[in-house]
Amino acid sequence: MKELQDRILKDGVAMNEDILKVDSFINHQVDPELMLHIGQEFAAHFKDQGITKIATIESSGIAPALMTAQCMGLPLIILKKQPSKVLNDNLYQTEVTSFTKGTSYELTLSSKFISENDHVLIIDDFLANGEAATGAMRLLRKAHATIAGIGILIEKSFQPGHEKLISQGLDVYSLARIGHMEAGRIEFIE
Amino acid sequence: MKELQDRILKDGVAMNEDILKVDSFINHQVDPELMLHIGQEFAAHFKDQGITKIATIESSGIAPALMTAQCMGLPLIILKKQPSKVLNDNLYQTEVTSFTKGTSYELTLSSKFISENDHVLIIDDFLANGEAATGAMRLLRKAHATIAGIGILIEKSFQPGHEKLISQGLDVYSLARIGHMEAGRIEFIE
Repeated sequence: MKELQDRILKDGVAMNEDILKVDSFINHQVDPELMLHIGQEFAAHFKDQGITKIATIESSGIAPALMTAQCMGLPLIILKKQPSKVLNDNLYQTEVTSFTKGTSYELTLSSKFISENDHVLIIDDFLANGEAATGAMRLLRKAHATIAGIGILIEKSFQPGHEKLISQGLDVYSLARIGHMEAGRIEFIE
Repeated sequence: MKELQDRILKDGVAMNEDILKVDSFINHQVDPELMLHIGQEFAAHFKDQGITKIATIESSGIAPALMTAQCMGLPLIILKKQPSKVLNDNLYQTEVTSFTKGTSYELTLSSKFISENDHVLIIDDFLANGEAATGAMRLLRKAHATIAGIGILIEKSFQPGHEKLISQGLDVYSLARIGHMEAGRIEFIE
């Protein structure tokens, strides 16, 4: 998506080979117009696939996922991060470890919002090692839902997440794929 | 706002005199169409006031705040919750204690996104004791911004938050004001 790639080049900051700051338009300050265009792009790519719900992981995925849900006329499910396991029969939970941050959390979904009849599109801001997306899929499969695909804003294509997901036959649609980064320099691949 | 009040009566669950569950359309599963209508309502109420930015507190406020920002053509700032103080010259921080939950967190704002020239509208999902809104205001004032007003989805009018805020001369616009609750029963006031 050219608009997003142009914006990353203009306002994103590559700190080093691994860390890209996009906090002026995605994470901390959010550009609603860009989020709407991203929602329209995902809605166009994933249309006519029988998708019943959009899911995202709190909190950076919420803005683009909400716009996607609005464009597709579907409910949005926010998978919640909790510091530790909660004992509750009505919750699905799975542990996600972030190699990037060196932290773990419990990803949580209330059983009443996803069923075996759901075909779910997952939207998230970043794809790097794929831990968050894999955790979200594990959680949705606990609810016996099927995964329609994964929509990502920014993919670090030099990390293994993309490969891990497409090797499972998933439709992974990343709007900006970064092939290489270094301080002050960002290179996209198609 | 009649649409929100009707929805609370239809899908909200009053657990007791204090706890209202709205997780099927606001917190956990989100209705994007309702969020858009809420954004339109806030945009109409707060128009022509020279507002420069919308601010909200992660993560339940993000959906209605994003739609408000989109309807008003303004950037959204997400105030981040962190478990403990981070030492960083570029961050404003303030401690918020939630009496409802009995927990504390550090509310955080990067100094580069708000300046003395900003006139900010705060959007949040709930107003009860007003700790979160007061913390957000404290943080925005550390950045020397001015507060244009506060837009709330659901106000527990029997708790002191509303009074605390309007006594400071603030424009507090709550879309659904609950005067009394008990298990299975919700009463609105105008």
